[in-house]
Amino acid sequence: GAIGIEMCEALSDLWGIDTTLIEMAPQILPQALGSDFARVAQHELEKNGVKVLLAETVTGIKGDDSGRVRAVRTKGAGEIPCDLVIFAAGARPATQLARDAGLATGRFGGILVDARMRTSDPNIYAGGDCVELRHLVSGHTVHLPLGSLANRAGRVIGSNVTGGDARFEGVVGSFVIKVFGLGVARAGLTEAQARDAGFDPAYAIVPTTDKAHFYPGAKMLYFKLIADRKSRRVLGVEAICENGDAAKARVDAVAALLPHRATVEDVSNLEVAYAPPFAQAMD
Amino acid sequence: GAIGIEMCEALSDLWGIDTTLIEMAPQILPQALGSDFARVAQHELEKNGVKVLLAETVTGIKGDDSGRVRAVRTKGAGEIPCDLVIFAAGARPATQLARDAGLATGRFGGILVDARMRTSDPNIYAGGDCVELRHLVSGHTVHLPLGSLANRAGRVIGSNVTGGDARFEGVVGSFVIKVFGLGVARAGLTEAQARDAGFDPAYAIVPTTDKAHFYPGAKMLYFKLIADRKSRRVLGVEAICENGDAAKARVDAVAALLPHRATVEDVSNLEVAYAPPFAQAMD
Repeated sequence: GAIGIEMCEALSDLWGIDTTLIEMAPQILPQALGSDFARVAQHELEKNGVKVLLAETVTGIKGDDSGRVRAVRTKGAGEIPCDLVIFAAGARPATQLARDAGLATGRFGGILVDARMRTSDPNIYAGGDCVELRHLVSGHTVHLPLGSLANRAGRVIGSNVTGGDARFEGVVGSFVIKVFGLGVARAGLTEAQARDAGFDPAYAIVPTTDKAHFYPGAKMLYFKLIADRKSRRVLGVEAICENGDAAKARVDAVAALLPHRATVEDVSNLEVAYAPPFAQAMD
Repeated sequence: GAIGIEMCEALSDLWGIDTTLIEMAPQILPQALGSDFARVAQHELEKNGVKVLLAETVTGIKGDDSGRVRAVRTKGAGEIPCDLVIFAAGARPATQLARDAGLATGRFGGILVDARMRTSDPNIYAGGDCVELRHLVSGHTVHLPLGSLANRAGRVIGSNVTGGDARFEGVVGSFVIKVFGLGVARAGLTEAQARDAGFDPAYAIVPTTDKAHFYPGAKMLYFKLIADRKSRRVLGVEAICENGDAAKARVDAVAALLPHRATVEDVSNLEVAYAPPFAQAMD
């Protein structure tokens, strides 16, 4: 996930430490990206000296007599000598207290809340990494422990417990991460998530530039749109660019449309701001 | 307008030419920005050596015997010596041909078209800088000679004349310009335009940063939201930042919502991608 990749960058780039990323899934960022864009992000890690092991399982950690870590044992790659191990294997909501109190929880163990962030006991509100939120594209509840969503939940709860009527209808999973020199952004569902949710996803990848092609310093921008084959409803969007703000701009604009059940035509008609230093005329 | 400002930057920054911008209106970019953000953009021009004259009228141009320009005569500032004059005083649609052919034109002289880009003669299509388009916030037709819109009109016409059924429902006026070190972006209506369209606009300006406040290289980002006081409908958005891509990202996301008659709450619930290098957690 994001924490693991951010730690890799910090260790390797800031402190010059030899770093290995061990990922259980067959790709990095499996919750966020399709396998093609994940491969681009992985290559950026590798170009910067991070070793990436995919579909790999950690079986143990080896220490020495003084209690210091010496190696990580893996199923496939054997022992990897190391001085430091960072666990960033995702988070599961610690909701024992809520379950003991009889509150309903969802398929990821998160507390279930309504749009006003009330739990199954209307006198108890919950928000942050311990709750599940409704995904506005798939319709299912998801567990997305993101700071931006926790902040928003806090505002909604604060407003409601003080007599307001604020709502949090759900999420589209907007996400951005810096991977060394790349910005990687996405929102909505990946193809795999779309299939799981009952859609029949098709996708298009557009290689373009973040500025007009003639503008100095233009960087390649890879844009991917995932849509349901039959309804043409847009299900997800991914973007990768050395100019991370440009990747975010493209994803945020589509993310704004996702709750409105936008179609491919809606996205192609999106009126985004154009000037040569910031976009293509047909962006 | 944009061309004038872009020419000022090119002349002054690229070629080191002493440059004066003469603006008829009491502010620069009167179609694009409220007077407060226009003042910020003006200061950026002045900081970079461009002289800006506001509410000024050009009364004549003075040449010498060899036919070379020597000065611009103005009402307020007298004669301004110069070697080069660039007219960038806006564009009016050259639609005499269309009017001779009996096609309906609008209040700006632009050819009127329907959502399929057909003129009042359904066998004739028109697009580009010669047409007026419906503004999706004000409901009026506007003349917006922008490359991005001309491109889109061309796609719609191309599709329709070859048997398709493409639509161009209207515009929200998304716009971005580089003014030396600043990116200035906007969409929707300014306060003045909102008042003209019969709204009762209120606005909020949020000074924030383009990245998390603790992230190296964070730049100030000034964000302005204009909304109708009674309906809370969002009417316009403006953003200024040294990181122009960040200004564009904020404006594009709101621009995507404008055709959906978004309220202030919709914008505050907008789920934009967050990570410290690219945004604040409460962006």
